[in-house]
Amino acid sequence: MATDIEISAMRRALDAARATARTLPNPRVGCVLLSPDGKELAIGAHRGAGTPHAEVDALEQAGEAARGATAVVTLEPCNHTGTTGPCTKALIDAGVARVVFAQIDPNRTASGGTKTLKAAGIDVESGPLAAEATDLNEEWTFAMTAGRPFVTWKYAATLDGLSAAPDGTSKWITSEEARRDVQVFRAEADAIVAGTGAVLADDPRLTVRDAKDLPLPFDRQPLRVVVGETKIPNYYRVFDRVAPTLLIQSRDPEVVMQKLVENNIRHIWLEGGPRLAGAFWNAGVIDRIIGYIAPAMLGSGRAALEGEATTLADLRPITIDDLTMVGPDIRMIGTPGRMQREDFD
Amino acid sequence: MATDIEISAMRRALDAARATARTLPNPRVGCVLLSPDGKELAIGAHRGAGTPHAEVDALEQAGEAARGATAVVTLEPCNHTGTTGPCTKALIDAGVARVVFAQIDPNRTASGGTKTLKAAGIDVESGPLAAEATDLNEEWTFAMTAGRPFVTWKYAATLDGLSAAPDGTSKWITSEEARRDVQVFRAEADAIVAGTGAVLADDPRLTVRDAKDLPLPFDRQPLRVVVGETKIPNYYRVFDRVAPTLLIQSRDPEVVMQKLVENNIRHIWLEGGPRLAGAFWNAGVIDRIIGYIAPAMLGSGRAALEGEATTLADLRPITIDDLTMVGPDIRMIGTPGRMQREDFD
Repeated sequence: MATDIEISAMRRALDAARATARTLPNPRVGCVLLSPDGKELAIGAHRGAGTPHAEVDALEQAGEAARGATAVVTLEPCNHTGTTGPCTKALIDAGVARVVFAQIDPNRTASGGTKTLKAAGIDVESGPLAAEATDLNEEWTFAMTAGRPFVTWKYAATLDGLSAAPDGTSKWITSEEARRDVQVFRAEADAIVAGTGAVLADDPRLTVRDAKDLPLPFDRQPLRVVVGETKIPNYYRVFDRVAPTLLIQSRDPEVVMQKLVENNIRHIWLEGGPRLAGAFWNAGVIDRIIGYIAPAMLGSGRAALEGEATTLADLRPITIDDLTMVGPDIRMIGTPGRMQREDFD
Repeated sequence: MATDIEISAMRRALDAARATARTLPNPRVGCVLLSPDGKELAIGAHRGAGTPHAEVDALEQAGEAARGATAVVTLEPCNHTGTTGPCTKALIDAGVARVVFAQIDPNRTASGGTKTLKAAGIDVESGPLAAEATDLNEEWTFAMTAGRPFVTWKYAATLDGLSAAPDGTSKWITSEEARRDVQVFRAEADAIVAGTGAVLADDPRLTVRDAKDLPLPFDRQPLRVVVGETKIPNYYRVFDRVAPTLLIQSRDPEVVMQKLVENNIRHIWLEGGPRLAGAFWNAGVIDRIIGYIAPAMLGSGRAALEGEATTLADLRPITIDDLTMVGPDIRMIGTPGRMQREDFD
């Protein structure tokens, strides 16, 4: 059993993980090192691919003091060599006596940490605050388990469900506050996906900007992904140097997913194009919906979603997780009812 | 100036008026009679066309004690003979010494009460709690001022703004709770308007039912109004004996309004038919929107509103007055931004 001191340390480790910016394609992980008498020796966190894992971050701070310590980690220590060495080895080498972790590693290539640690004579305990730890990496965990990226579909529409007027005009249906709010969510995804139609029509930047509309640094930008067969002229903003851009010449969700898996993408932010959204919707691969609904109606225009329903039995329920006002607009966050899911693994 | 005792009496008069069921085509009115030393002699309310006005209701209870009393009324006493005699005459005949009222009568044929009362030597004070009194009869006041009924448009739709699947199926998009909630609002209107298309498609009852789905008595039912040129066979439920039904062989909102004004209708509940809603929307004669939005999406189907927008400048803002959950559904109550308004007077 984890002690109260260890559970309290786990809360601090979770906080340290939460405080990091996006770490994808890696999960957010925090680690607290406790001395045998329960004092905090170090607190570490992972800060993204190429940087030390949380355990190594904490061990480096603790130095020799780590010998005989307890490592409290939000995720099962990894067992494989990626861009950094396995954490199990670092913990064993440092002489850690006990490891308490929350979430079991769902990553089929990185798992096996518990077995390796135990074989080295380390006392291992798993499970405390596992639900909180899993929530922290909801999209990553999904991607590891389902073998495809988690898909968040964002749309902006009127109360009557329209995203553009009949003549194609759509700037702006929602408020500046809503468009700023989008940036916060975009920053959490590691790819922003739009269709060629939307790119040609609106010339969007598909980047993450701060409150002053200035882009975050290149290495903090999600991958921009433009899908579809129509050619986009190279002077379009999606080809500027603010962020990397990937072209996928197919709208087929399975093909798109495959390409994104190959690019180590865990969480895609799908926007731009009712037809593209419709293709993902029909394939049952939309995992979260973030809708910004303007307090206005048009009466005619282009629907936010162009799917393929024929009868009312095709109605797909959505669990509303959050409903709030963002400036003058309504923001709805929901989870679509699950369809049979393709396995892209 | 009205005294504190009179203002307190006005609150009780407002409460008495609020407690009544729908009184349309007449307004809700309450009246408290106070003795010269401020004691409540009687409290009266109007209960609908053909029944005594609030002042007369209170005077009848007070009898001889009304001599020298103060009448505190939520609406300026009427000055004309309709189905009952003028209240000004009743107040003068009863020997009332002072009249305090809240809302000035907006009715061009019934107004003039103040002048008549003053000419008879009665002390008249107007204005206290006028805003509350006007709110109490918002739709009636609108109808008196604009010369046409107040229009509440009700729709039920998915989150993507659809009211029916492509094959026309639409039962039920929203929940039983939402459909029950509708009854409470329907009971407040004095006409329920639907298009022939919606009637033929769904065979709706267009009546007000209680929690057990039993209809209210005939004399509490709003007028059912079916608009459009298509003939409805006489076995449709809209022709049952539960409520009166009026046919208007035109979808032109101006023609419909004219007919409803002739029928003394003050507040219409518009539902059933995206095309009918669209006609009213385009004419700028929707005054309130009550939307029930199901937590679901269809992806294709029939829009809740079929209007005539061409470009984004046609976007009509809606002030959201209330947003709440009704069972699993979202209920939005809003006020459309005003367009130039036709005067049907």
